[in-house]
Amino acid sequence: MGSGEVKRVSLAVIRRLPKYHKCLGELLQKNVERVSSQELGRILGFTASQVRQDLNNFGEFGQQGYGYNVEQLYNEIAKILGLNTEHKMVIVGAGKLGQALAGYRDFERHGFKILAMFDVDPHLVGSKVRDVPVYDMNDLIYYVNENEVDIAVIAVPRERAQEVADILSKTLVKGIWNFAPVEVDAGPNIIVENVHLLDSLLTLSYRMNESKLMERLARKNEKKTGFVKIPAE
Amino acid sequence: MGSGEVKRVSLAVIRRLPKYHKCLGELLQKNVERVSSQELGRILGFTASQVRQDLNNFGEFGQQGYGYNVEQLYNEIAKILGLNTEHKMVIVGAGKLGQALAGYRDFERHGFKILAMFDVDPHLVGSKVRDVPVYDMNDLIYYVNENEVDIAVIAVPRERAQEVADILSKTLVKGIWNFAPVEVDAGPNIIVENVHLLDSLLTLSYRMNESKLMERLARKNEKKTGFVKIPAE
Repeated sequence: MGSGEVKRVSLAVIRRLPKYHKCLGELLQKNVERVSSQELGRILGFTASQVRQDLNNFGEFGQQGYGYNVEQLYNEIAKILGLNTEHKMVIVGAGKLGQALAGYRDFERHGFKILAMFDVDPHLVGSKVRDVPVYDMNDLIYYVNENEVDIAVIAVPRERAQEVADILSKTLVKGIWNFAPVEVDAGPNIIVENVHLLDSLLTLSYRMNESKLMERLARKNEKKTGFVKIPAE
Repeated sequence: MGSGEVKRVSLAVIRRLPKYHKCLGELLQKNVERVSSQELGRILGFTASQVRQDLNNFGEFGQQGYGYNVEQLYNEIAKILGLNTEHKMVIVGAGKLGQALAGYRDFERHGFKILAMFDVDPHLVGSKVRDVPVYDMNDLIYYVNENEVDIAVIAVPRERAQEVADILSKTLVKGIWNFAPVEVDAGPNIIVENVHLLDSLLTLSYRMNESKLMERLARKNEKKTGFVKIPAE
């Protein structure tokens, strides 16, 4: 990378940032002032050089031999993650999942305020979950634009998800957090982050199956080469 | 990697496998018989060499110049993901989130059968969500062992999550799928997969913030070097 040039950061790095943020927040609460890349790596299960590489994407934070200033790095990562401004969210779909998300206090603690939920079901419209009101779907566009909502959560069945994304594409919303198990498209101006619950379950299933699988692969290789070696974990 | 040697597969590769599986399933439904690494990569947004590298972790699938046999690769990846056997699941916590998960039909379609839910709330015990019965928490250990349940879902508030993991550590369960926003430990014999909803939300927030951030970094570099260059997307 030439000097002055800003490289786009890979999604893999981005997905690690929340872990740095959380870990630094915990150190800050323990009044830790400085932390080395070794120590950060040890807590997070990364190598020290991985930590330095990750953080170098966003400028020069550490000081050789002195480590990182915990508070400064924490604030800087918060800024990078967009946590220095409050985000206004609505949840589209006030069924079980929407209600579960509305009840989840961790989001608000990080500056993501859930203002309202929207549903087509007249039995739900007018009710409240915690202190979040449920409004009629027909009011979604007006509400979002009027209240400068920047994130919409899609928590409707998969069959309705694209329809909701189409409606949202007509609003000033900047991001969609999609829980429906289907990819949705909301045009070039809206960022969509899909929550793939099934992928996470399949990853668990793989990891449960891994030792058996490795044995099977080793036996296959053994047949071919007459030589087998399974590394220690 | 020497011949015959089986290398542990990185978590990054594993997390991509469900995407291959899904994509191949869709090709299979369209009666596509063969697919090249270029074509697979194009659909999934990876490079062809990434595709070849990923799949090479599990043996030799493709044939130079002929591409992959779609059905064979689909079945092989299903086996790798442990989808050739049915998994029996229980959900611990029958609140909003547990009920939402019990209603999610995608899991069953992939061989993950939800047998029962467990809760401490006497108002919930005895009820049913879809066709999934809610039983008393006190019966969890007995039920799991008696019915050879291999996956337990933790869908209780964060304060109760470790307590549930402790109970599960006394069962024959092989995997825990944890939705509580806190890491849990269930001993060396149980694989834990954490669903970090907040990380996903923070990733969305980062991506919404990215162009502003990149401008800021470029300005910073410009001050230092008098030279600025922002690459095209």
